[in-house]
Amino acid sequence: MRPSGRTASQIRPVTITRQFTQHAEGSVLIEFGNTKVICTATVEEGVPRFMKGQGKGWVTAEYSMLPRSTHTRSQREAARGKQGGRTLEIQRLIARALRGAVDLKLLGENTVIIDCDVIQADGGTRTASITGGCVALMDALTWMRSKGLIKANPMKYMIAAISVGIYKGTPIADLEYLEDSAAETDMNVVMADSGQLIEVQGTAEEAPFSFDELQEMMELSKHALRELFDIQRAALN
Amino acid sequence: MRPSGRTASQIRPVTITRQFTQHAEGSVLIEFGNTKVICTATVEEGVPRFMKGQGKGWVTAEYSMLPRSTHTRSQREAARGKQGGRTLEIQRLIARALRGAVDLKLLGENTVIIDCDVIQADGGTRTASITGGCVALMDALTWMRSKGLIKANPMKYMIAAISVGIYKGTPIADLEYLEDSAAETDMNVVMADSGQLIEVQGTAEEAPFSFDELQEMMELSKHALRELFDIQRAALN
Amino acid sequence: MRPSGRTASQIRPVTITRQFTQHAEGSVLIEFGNTKVICTATVEEGVPRFMKGQGKGWVTAEYSMLPRSTHTRSQREAARGKQGGRTLEIQRLIARALRGAVDLKLLGENTVIIDCDVIQADGGTRTASITGGCVALMDALTWMRSKGLIKANPMKYMIAAISVGIYKGTPIADLEYLEDSAAETDMNVVMADSGQLIEVQGTAEEAPFSFDELQEMMELSKHALRELFDIQRAALN
Amino acid sequence: MRPSGRTASQIRPVTITRQFTQHAEGSVLIEFGNTKVICTATVEEGVPRFMKGQGKGWVTAEYSMLPRSTHTRSQREAARGKQGGRTLEIQRLIARALRGAVDLKLLGENTVIIDCDVIQADGGTRTASITGGCVALMDALTWMRSKGLIKANPMKYMIAAISVGIYKGTPIADLEYLEDSAAETDMNVVMADSGQLIEVQGTAEEAPFSFDELQEMMELSKHALRELFDIQRAALN
Amino acid sequence: MRPSGRTASQIRPVTITRQFTQHAEGSVLIEFGNTKVICTATVEEGVPRFMKGQGKGWVTAEYSMLPRSTHTRSQREAARGKQGGRTLEIQRLIARALRGAVDLKLLGENTVIIDCDVIQADGGTRTASITGGCVALMDALTWMRSKGLIKANPMKYMIAAISVGIYKGTPIADLEYLEDSAAETDMNVVMADSGQLIEVQGTAEEAPFSFDELQEMMELSKHALRELFDIQRAALN
Amino acid sequence: MRPSGRTASQIRPVTITRQFTQHAEGSVLIEFGNTKVICTATVEEGVPRFMKGQGKGWVTAEYSMLPRSTHTRSQREAARGKQGGRTLEIQRLIARALRGAVDLKLLGENTVIIDCDVIQADGGTRTASITGGCVALMDALTWMRSKGLIKANPMKYMIAAISVGIYKGTPIADLEYLEDSAAETDMNVVMADSGQLIEVQGTAEEAPFSFDELQEMMELSKHALRELFDIQRAALN
Repeated sequence: MRPSGRTASQIRPVTITRQFTQHAEGSVLIEFGNTKVICTATVEEGVPRFMKGQGKGWVTAEYSMLPRSTHTRSQREAARGKQGGRTLEIQRLIARALRGAVDLKLLGENTVIIDCDVIQADGGTRTASITGGCVALMDALTWMRSKGLIKANPMKYMIAAISVGIYKGTPIADLEYLEDSAAETDMNVVMADSGQLIEVQGTAEEAPFSFDELQEMMELSKHALRELFDIQRAALN
Repeated sequence: MRPSGRTASQIRPVTITRQFTQHAEGSVLIEFGNTKVICTATVEEGVPRFMKGQGKGWVTAEYSMLPRSTHTRSQREAARGKQGGRTLEIQRLIARALRGAVDLKLLGENTVIIDCDVIQADGGTRTASITGGCVALMDALTWMRSKGLIKANPMKYMIAAISVGIYKGTPIADLEYLEDSAAETDMNVVMADSGQLIEVQGTAEEAPFSFDELQEMMELSKHALRELFDIQRAALN
Repeated sequence: MRPSGRTASQIRPVTITRQFTQHAEGSVLIEFGNTKVICTATVEEGVPRFMKGQGKGWVTAEYSMLPRSTHTRSQREAARGKQGGRTLEIQRLIARALRGAVDLKLLGENTVIIDCDVIQADGGTRTASITGGCVALMDALTWMRSKGLIKANPMKYMIAAISVGIYKGTPIADLEYLEDSAAETDMNVVMADSGQLIEVQGTAEEAPFSFDELQEMMELSKHALRELFDIQRAALN
Repeated sequence: MRPSGRTASQIRPVTITRQFTQHAEGSVLIEFGNTKVICTATVEEGVPRFMKGQGKGWVTAEYSMLPRSTHTRSQREAARGKQGGRTLEIQRLIARALRGAVDLKLLGENTVIIDCDVIQADGGTRTASITGGCVALMDALTWMRSKGLIKANPMKYMIAAISVGIYKGTPIADLEYLEDSAAETDMNVVMADSGQLIEVQGTAEEAPFSFDELQEMMELSKHALRELFDIQRAALN
Repeated sequence: MRPSGRTASQIRPVTITRQFTQHAEGSVLIEFGNTKVICTATVEEGVPRFMKGQGKGWVTAEYSMLPRSTHTRSQREAARGKQGGRTLEIQRLIARALRGAVDLKLLGENTVIIDCDVIQADGGTRTASITGGCVALMDALTWMRSKGLIKANPMKYMIAAISVGIYKGTPIADLEYLEDSAAETDMNVVMADSGQLIEVQGTAEEAPFSFDELQEMMELSKHALRELFDIQRAALN
Repeated sequence: MRPSGRTASQIRPVTITRQFTQHAEGSVLIEFGNTKVICTATVEEGVPRFMKGQGKGWVTAEYSMLPRSTHTRSQREAARGKQGGRTLEIQRLIARALRGAVDLKLLGENTVIIDCDVIQADGGTRTASITGGCVALMDALTWMRSKGLIKANPMKYMIAAISVGIYKGTPIADLEYLEDSAAETDMNVVMADSGQLIEVQGTAEEAPFSFDELQEMMELSKHALRELFDIQRAALN
């Protein structure tokens, strides 16, 4: 039923390449099938003004798609002079999820910025960004400890994210573009490796969905997210 | 347990005043306790460029808070020169939800713009905007029929929205500001009056939440949303 | 002769509702007939950079119209990314007039911001903003004294503003939209309750005006402004 | 009493140099003492979108100060990314005044843009811009007739502008910077050479002014403006 | 003498990977040592407004660096709201050079956009962009011919670019970051494979340079550029 | 062969008027034939943030064209809300060249800003800006010494700039607009009066150029620049 021949619960091959670029404290290329995102983590001294003097750190994120990462070229946001609503919505989600995974007190007055730049898009760029960004963040925190900038590991838990949806009446996991653009309902689930939920965003694209369908999609995501945690762990070892 | 003495499932008094201002095709003041939002619906001929020539209409929304609708004044976005990420995220949600409730073919090549301007904020401004905006939209569509601009009612269903959350370990409905700012988890649920779901957005603010808590919050929202549909119906009669 | 049946010198019913919203230090809804403006006064510690270290305070103002406060919807300035020339011109006038009414030394290094948000427009929004803004400013200064932030009342005099014009060859006071859009000449007069002038702005819209007509309009404004000072005083008691 | 030794009603030497630059259809350097403004008039085919199809033309204006036209350098507005409120207020005044002097029907669907660029400022830049801009506009209209673009002269009357004010308690005409920055009241008067008024803008800078002082300033301006009309006429012959 | 041990005229290993991403009509990853740039070529129907109706095409380029492609993170231009001067200068150079290599008449009324996104920077990003962009452009033109959009190959010649400079008193080719930041003089040379020059930009960074040094650097660039043309040819076969 | 009848190496009449406006520390009107640029130098205490605490000064430049300095009017950049790529490219060149001519240590923590405003354009505005800007800079430095702000003259050498190009197959110096717009190749050369080179920028506009042509243009520029240094020296004495 799925264009790729995958089963409903089957996710695409996921690969995580660490130290993808050389300058950043954490640098990951994450691939969910044809979706490819570079996630870098930058450590900076100090915190934004509204956080100053609280003895706590800050974690933030930025998201962007290369203009031709998609089927047709989209206008470069820097040239247009502002980030679009979709971009801001996604980077707020990434930042919120990753920030929640860090004990900001243990981070001290330092900031970690996660840049997620999509070089090729085929559905699920925001969930790939969160899943890969978490690995880049972990690498940056390890770097901080190795430099003596922090004493303990501030990571409370690893997080990962997956998209699920209703496609031709059936709940499926990890939608690729062809599925995403035709799905009745699209949902992104962010989970901690403890099995607790971080963020749930479900949207009726073509048709409203029932409470039961919500339940089914949640189950599907739980399954897929466990696989992603295994892949993260393998990459980190 | 709640600052207001409400029970966990009890929503605030909700009032809907139609024809609140005189120029708009639909104009509603909606109040959820101390949260007050002016929702106006404007009918314009034509559609945005990317929709032209498809024989279909468009529904969009804009959201703003008066600078001093909140405890401390926030900078006016027009003066700052751009809308913030939170504003864009909220107005995308409002627009998506209301657009989904309309049969765009029956609307013809016309646009309805829902402006949601918060004049006083005490939590739940986005859910009040959706709930009030739906009434303003209905009034604008009725006006269109009365003017002969459309032949049939394009409204597929009424929609309403409510916030639910985990506050001091307990799921509660319709969070006011004091609760919202202290909640472990915050969730917005948009539903059609058919009982189907339109949008579900749950965020772990202070602590991750379990699949069971998600279930409980969904139940709570179902109950509250039925009340809101009654209030909408009463206002429209 | 006037669409409303008013006499040439007759102003519309004016009502001033104090404490209209709950968060601001001063909050006024002012209505000149169908023109309705929310004026809030916000007190903030400190002054803009160019005023620092002089031991003096600052008073400023911002003005905006809700997109559908008018007959046809105008684009939201926050979405457009900048405030228009008309908006800036009006808020500079409001700020200048209100700032002149305050002894900035007695204010200490504090700032009062007057936000004037038009929720319904029918001519005279800038004069309503000044007249209502002055009451909100007074309430904020009273609040400051009650909190011990200032010792003496810094208000030098109350101010109010009225529009006058030449309509079908006759000088009239307090133009509503229908008159305003057809007037030969339009003039705004800001006066102190001492009877002295603060600002006079007369513009030939359709036809130049004579020195005698200027004189007649000035007389008409004097009469109307006395009424407005009575209404302000009544509202403040 | 005046820093320059001028009498209260005495204006500075005014010179008008036509054809100051070579490309524009009208190009004037106007000097009021040390205030120097380049006013160019550009003729363009067509009108702005909101004027299309009415068979009428449009006249508009833009105003700017070179960064170091003043005692201390001000930030370049192009670098800052927006025009300031003062700039917009002034260019709206210039445009309104000059547009009113032209019969837009006789102009056909053409636009004339008056650019006023201050190269040296010593008070009165907006009144110099209007007075010089009117000559540049006249030259551009003459050019249009010579090219057969219009048949009749669309100029209804010449206009000129002067600043007057209360300085050390005395009404004076044509304030230079030292006077302007110390004046109790500052007023700009735009008049047609028919002796009728186009625009009157009086502002209490340091102290409110009386109805009688307004009257005196108006008389003073009438006198000064007659001189300016003579200078304009001489320059055009 | 050089940090890398290279000889003065020796360029870094250069690799060109075609079809690096899947959506673009031309997509190249070019590496000059540690400098890595993704160059994609997008074909769009139509031309910018100022080119319409001339029967000719257009070639343009955009350039950007990922925020953490450099040693320290630079602010994302999309977030800052504008492209910096350096970015605009570089993309104007890339566009001008590539546009010159194409016979715009043979291109028909089509546009090719070359996006150069630096994912890792170690000096010479603009010359890598031109050299890789030319291959991506060639691939896009070949695609156009295969689709029947154009009949003949509009490419007049291949172009490539190299940086040369004076480093510790000696002319060297292909500066990496360490050399670039310490060089007395920095120069970029763009050449056609015919051996003719397209663009020469030499800048005295630390010390002025002599006419003889200019001559020496030109010679050095000629040599390096011949190597680059060989690498381009090999990649295209 | 040249429209003006000049020989290939002949530059236009160049005049330098110092103290052109009265407020700036250095103010020069420079004319290359019909190209006229006002160059002012402003001295400000302090340096930009990235230079603080190094005990060194800063020199920067801004460039702008009056909207109607050209044959057809171009949009005012302040109204458009951003400076164009050409403007930024030019002002970066001017700033880089002039900054290189100053010993920043001798300047102390002070900034000199060179504003170059083109009031009439006929080709060569950037080279006129550099040549005139250098005189304005020298005047500002002399003023600083006279005020005791600096002890020694920080000027390392005078600089001047000239355009050269290939026009109808022949190398010529100092291109005016008619030549510039038809030239095969356009080149700008900035030189120190020591005879050393500061910046060389050659661009193939219509056709690539040979190494020999580069050589010829360089020779031509050397000749022309010597004349410009004589004119600068004469102006400064």
